[in-house]
Amino acid sequence: MGWFGEEKSRRTVRIDCFMKENTVNIYVRPISGIKIVVDLELMKIVEYHDTDIVAVPTDKNTEYRASHQSPPFGPKQHSLVSHQPKGPGFQINGHSVSWANWKFHIGFDVRAGVIISLASIYDLEKHKSRSVLYKGFISELFVPYQDPADDFNYKTFFDAGEFGFGLSTVPLIPNRDCPSHAQFIDSYTHSADGSPVLLKNAVCVFEQYGNIMWRHTETGIPNEFIEESRTEVNLIVRSVVTVGNYDNIVDWEFKTSGSIKPAIALSGILEIKGTNIKHKDEIKEDPHGTLVSANSIGVYHDHFYIYYLDLDIDGTHNSFEKTSLKTVRITDGSSKRKSYWTTETQTAKTESDAKITIGLAPSELTVVNTNKKTAVGNDVGYRLIPAIPAHPLLTEDDYPQIRGAFTNYNVWVTPYNRTEKWAGGLFVDHSHGDDTLAVWTKKNRDIVNKDIVMWHVVGIHHVPAQEDFPIMPLLSTAFELRPTNFFERNPVLKTLSPRDVQWPGCPK
Amino acid sequence: MGWFGEEKSRRTVRIDCFMKENTVNIYVRPISGIKIVVDLELMKIVEYHDTDIVAVPTDKNTEYRASHQSPPFGPKQHSLVSHQPKGPGFQINGHSVSWANWKFHIGFDVRAGVIISLASIYDLEKHKSRSVLYKGFISELFVPYQDPADDFNYKTFFDAGEFGFGLSTVPLIPNRDCPSHAQFIDSYTHSADGSPVLLKNAVCVFEQYGNIMWRHTETGIPNEFIEESRTEVNLIVRSVVTVGNYDNIVDWEFKTSGSIKPAIALSGILEIKGTNIKHKDEIKEDPHGTLVSANSIGVYHDHFYIYYLDLDIDGTHNSFEKTSLKTVRITDGSSKRKSYWTTETQTAKTESDAKITIGLAPSELTVVNTNKKTAVGNDVGYRLIPAIPAHPLLTEDDYPQIRGAFTNYNVWVTPYNRTEKWAGGLFVDHSHGDDTLAVWTKKNRDIVNKDIVMWHVVGIHHVPAQEDFPIMPLLSTAFELRPTNFFERNPVLKTLSPRDVQWPGCPK
Repeated sequence: MGWFGEEKSRRTVRIDCFMKENTVNIYVRPISGIKIVVDLELMKIVEYHDTDIVAVPTDKNTEYRASHQSPPFGPKQHSLVSHQPKGPGFQINGHSVSWANWKFHIGFDVRAGVIISLASIYDLEKHKSRSVLYKGFISELFVPYQDPADDFNYKTFFDAGEFGFGLSTVPLIPNRDCPSHAQFIDSYTHSADGSPVLLKNAVCVFEQYGNIMWRHTETGIPNEFIEESRTEVNLIVRSVVTVGNYDNIVDWEFKTSGSIKPAIALSGILEIKGTNIKHKDEIKEDPHGTLVSANSIGVYHDHFYIYYLDLDIDGTHNSFEKTSLKTVRITDGSSKRKSYWTTETQTAKTESDAKITIGLAPSELTVVNTNKKTAVGNDVGYRLIPAIPAHPLLTEDDYPQIRGAFTNYNVWVTPYNRTEKWAGGLFVDHSHGDDTLAVWTKKNRDIVNKDIVMWHVVGIHHVPAQEDFPIMPLLSTAFELRPTNFFERNPVLKTLSPRDVQWPGCPK
Repeated sequence: MGWFGEEKSRRTVRIDCFMKENTVNIYVRPISGIKIVVDLELMKIVEYHDTDIVAVPTDKNTEYRASHQSPPFGPKQHSLVSHQPKGPGFQINGHSVSWANWKFHIGFDVRAGVIISLASIYDLEKHKSRSVLYKGFISELFVPYQDPADDFNYKTFFDAGEFGFGLSTVPLIPNRDCPSHAQFIDSYTHSADGSPVLLKNAVCVFEQYGNIMWRHTETGIPNEFIEESRTEVNLIVRSVVTVGNYDNIVDWEFKTSGSIKPAIALSGILEIKGTNIKHKDEIKEDPHGTLVSANSIGVYHDHFYIYYLDLDIDGTHNSFEKTSLKTVRITDGSSKRKSYWTTETQTAKTESDAKITIGLAPSELTVVNTNKKTAVGNDVGYRLIPAIPAHPLLTEDDYPQIRGAFTNYNVWVTPYNRTEKWAGGLFVDHSHGDDTLAVWTKKNRDIVNKDIVMWHVVGIHHVPAQEDFPIMPLLSTAFELRPTNFFERNPVLKTLSPRDVQWPGCPK
């Protein structure tokens, strides 16, 4: 039930009520207008208010199980059979994965869910493996809803810290959540009494085809026609974390060209607030959401994921560089042009220098190892290519925002500290915001040439639409960690396309 | 050779020289320090200056053809055989494509390249096709380089208007540029003397597998475990436009859930400037680029694509809405919270209202049809979900920026006018910037409930890295046009996953 400035709080939770008659899609049939507080130490309801009589939305059109839906179905999708004649290009040994030029470990934690660690890439020219990512995982997911009324304002969820990304990881459905050529890894979590619980198909690993790695067609040389295109195979590590209504599809994509692309996709069910309103014309005051169906408000909210990225670029001692792109005006008549842009690189000396709001001013954000240079003298590095960013809209002094203050910037860099893993604090339920990334970084520690951690906030402001109802088609976002002067040159210059093969029994 | 304020200009071009000995990768072996101007009417060299003696970069490590590369090759990629037992899910009839719930036309134009038109989606509930995109194509691509020196400052390319996206479209290589289950469409362009030229495999169409359409696992109902996941099949229409050194992979992705995702990916070869510098330590002044190899500067530049998107959302008469997300501070003690955010929707009345810089202030940009409402009264619409935007860095009064002034905003909306197709003007070579989107919109025409065109600028600021050399792994960006209250509810709620099939000859 969050924290709203109380000095002391008891171990209490708020309870929501739903109608489960005639549907399994309970979240779209809320019984609104009731407030129930349960004290977990007394195991008793300690507050009950029936504040309002609100219509419960209909069960009609809420069913999402094919086995319970009736025809007509459509549109129709055709099948594709895939087969890898020499098997997949990866090998899983326990939790260690080897694939093409990558090696890494897939860990699993009750709080973080999937953890990628010890990711290193083999450098064909240097004849050795070089470290990239010591450890990467989603540290927290902050989902504040935007209805200030008493029956909704406490919905400011911290899904990793309050529920557990690992505890909320669900079994993947073969041939549905992952293609038929995927391999699965099981994991263990624990039940409330501490006994181990097998989680089947917690993670899947598969190769994705269909893209180009690089190409060129050359028509500029007289009497020659040159074309070369190399097909790309990517590796995807997928898990699905379902925290109540929402399903978070968490992908880690690896590319032979050295990039790591973490992607988030949202599906599942909107958090609905019941209303007596059946048509937009009846709306007289701010509904705090979209009327997505009769009697159903899809309440405005945000999804802020924060990634913990302990990059170890070619070694543990790294620095964080911000390269600004700056306009230069030419006034001395030295060029026919009046302007151009150039770059200005600053090394972030302390944590304050590395608090970045991604916005209008273009810049390249790079983690570099200044102790390692390329042959022509560039620092080896990896660059962050972000998705369109989301910035917090709550006021800084609002209680949920104090607890979720790690969203104040899109990028943060801290010196490695083994106690600093959870951006919203170690104990998040009822937290007062005194143990967040925003608090730690007030120490303004030195981050030059140290073992550093980059934190990256990926966000979606969610104004629901009718298409999100009664279950939401994927809404996705992704960012890229891309080698930047890490290799001497394109590391896949000599990577061949997979061989064309024709399986004997499979006609063209 | 661009325009730099001259009142009159002749039909002149600048000529670059390259070494083609021992490599076909000519762009990385420039002979810098020479200026040559050719008068196309006289067909004569009218200026020649040998301004500097600059080393020509080595041919070593520049070869990109597998047939001319020597071992070791790697890393290795495994093959995948794919087969669609019932054939593909799409049908191509001439230039018309039917697929799942979509129908559209693939046109081809010497200037624009691929044109998607008359795209409509079948609404299973309304039992009819509904229009979405009347016409969409890339109107211009502006690539200004950022070296003010006389041998580089004229490189401010307008690839569609100066070279032609259609004329520069190259044949796709089966099994490399497109997967083995793709189908190809040929097209015709013309040679300099007007005779028709067959362009084989100008476009490919294929279905992409591997993603989830929507899913949910429900664990909140006592004694029940519910899981449902639907596999997504997407349709991709791909072409490759190679303008000199760069290869632009132009994808149009269609989703059964109603989204259209245009994507751009860059590959090909950097524009290199020769230098006598072999190591970064020798750099004494701004190199205007990255030392990507000895004697080789990868010059800073931008890629600004502008899409022409004549959306016809459920009819021709549409409006453009900007929904701002605004913080509301609570000061009256009516909530335990101190703030929340809500939305404020404004209809853009004229072209000036619709000039959008995408940046810090979050907003939802939607093309709506206010003449058509959903059952609960929302205007039907499609929303733009942009990638991280790029803003121009040249000064507004600089000649290249006057010509490329359509990059001044990320989104523009104009009333449909059949003469306004080319954002940089009809005649771009040596243009003075008097016929651009920025000029047209000064009329500030009414755009409410009219046939309107949305223009969207997708940009990449390119600070080259050594990995881009000698040929660049794909760098991609994409945006989404997503139905927003267009359908009554999730339009793929009753779309089944493709059937699991096992081809008899293909062992699991």
